[in-house]
Amino acid sequence: MLIQETIEVRTPGRGTQELTQSVEAIVRRAGVTTGLCHVFLHHTSASLILSENADPTVRRDLEAFAGRLIPDGDPLFQHTDEGPDDMAAHVRTLLAGHDLTIPVRNGHLALGTWQGIYLWEHRHHPHQRRVTVTLQGE
Amino acid sequence: MLIQETIEVRTPGRGTQELTQSVEAIVRRAGVTTGLCHVFLHHTSASLILSENADPTVRRDLEAFAGRLIPDGDPLFQHTDEGPDDMAAHVRTLLAGHDLTIPVRNGHLALGTWQGIYLWEHRHHPHQRRVTVTLQGE
Amino acid sequence: MLIQETIEVRTPGRGTQELTQSVEAIVRRAGVTTGLCHVFLHHTSASLILSENADPTVRRDLEAFAGRLIPDGDPLFQHTDEGPDDMAAHVRTLLAGHDLTIPVRNGHLALGTWQGIYLWEHRHHPHQRRVTVTLQGE
Repeated sequence: MLIQETIEVRTPGRGTQELTQSVEAIVRRAGVTTGLCHVFLHHTSASLILSENADPTVRRDLEAFAGRLIPDGDPLFQHTDEGPDDMAAHVRTLLAGHDLTIPVRNGHLALGTWQGIYLWEHRHHPHQRRVTVTLQGE
Repeated sequence: MLIQETIEVRTPGRGTQELTQSVEAIVRRAGVTTGLCHVFLHHTSASLILSENADPTVRRDLEAFAGRLIPDGDPLFQHTDEGPDDMAAHVRTLLAGHDLTIPVRNGHLALGTWQGIYLWEHRHHPHQRRVTVTLQGE
Repeated sequence: MLIQETIEVRTPGRGTQELTQSVEAIVRRAGVTTGLCHVFLHHTSASLILSENADPTVRRDLEAFAGRLIPDGDPLFQHTDEGPDDMAAHVRTLLAGHDLTIPVRNGHLALGTWQGIYLWEHRHHPHQRRVTVTLQGE
């Protein structure tokens, strides 16, 4: 069984928003019992991550860490066409990633208790982001 | 062909332990000749990585690098409920990853000569860690 | 449908080279319409990444960032058998990754407009690198 679906996500600017329920809804609708769910972001300035999902300060701390490691407007960067967060967003995407592969078991995403799926927008301005979910299984 | 198996790994605290033989045993038992093997860790404070497998100082150096880049007790972090290694472990997982996808070829994991699969515990205390292996192929 | 193909890439030393067309050619030849394409590098001192593909200064800036974060000859490292770029290359691979999974849609890699596939050599000397492409779909 193979199902592929593309969803659009509007981000309000830099920060995380949870997608666990949206992806889980696709898994349920597809009727896959056992298999793999691949979630892919078609962009190089935002990320898809699994983060601790209980305490929002975890995501606040991830943001703070990224901001210190990869500061906007770093004089190291030459690619600044779209502003001081342009190249910083590309580096954040390189390090945090842009896709996830999650086991499906008993018809559900087999996430750990504290794992949630988040889209992490790295640009300060709102963006329209495209995500493709591919399910393989039986 | 689709096989899914969950294994439990007891970690002795921060550090790496090799899982290559455990995963290879599942591949052999499954009888998949050609395909993909996905290995997923259901946690946000430990990692699954491919590391150089010949010289143990490589893993010692990865640990040293992580410790310098993401120090325990960093005053930047607000999420410190479970101690000074709590948030550091989440950041390490973000950067080092939590899953692997490896080609299967001729009935074996098609790893490079120097690639080994390691579970990298980021917490100082021992933990019980759950890993799901999903095999797809023929 | 399951297709697996291994290609060899000669790198001229540290830096990026685009593989998008080589992988797309395998997808076309395989005749997969919908599915997933997994691209795996069998090495621990080079990476496979998706990078912005329009402005070469993005890749120049990724290189500059990696060089500052993970300097060659860092006195922290003990694994220096093959020179000052040996352990730095392993850390770069840990952070930038060694494989990619990309949706296939309408018979093509469903990359975003600005996403290109790059092999990123982390060693200064030229190397022969092995890449396995696995296609699953229908």
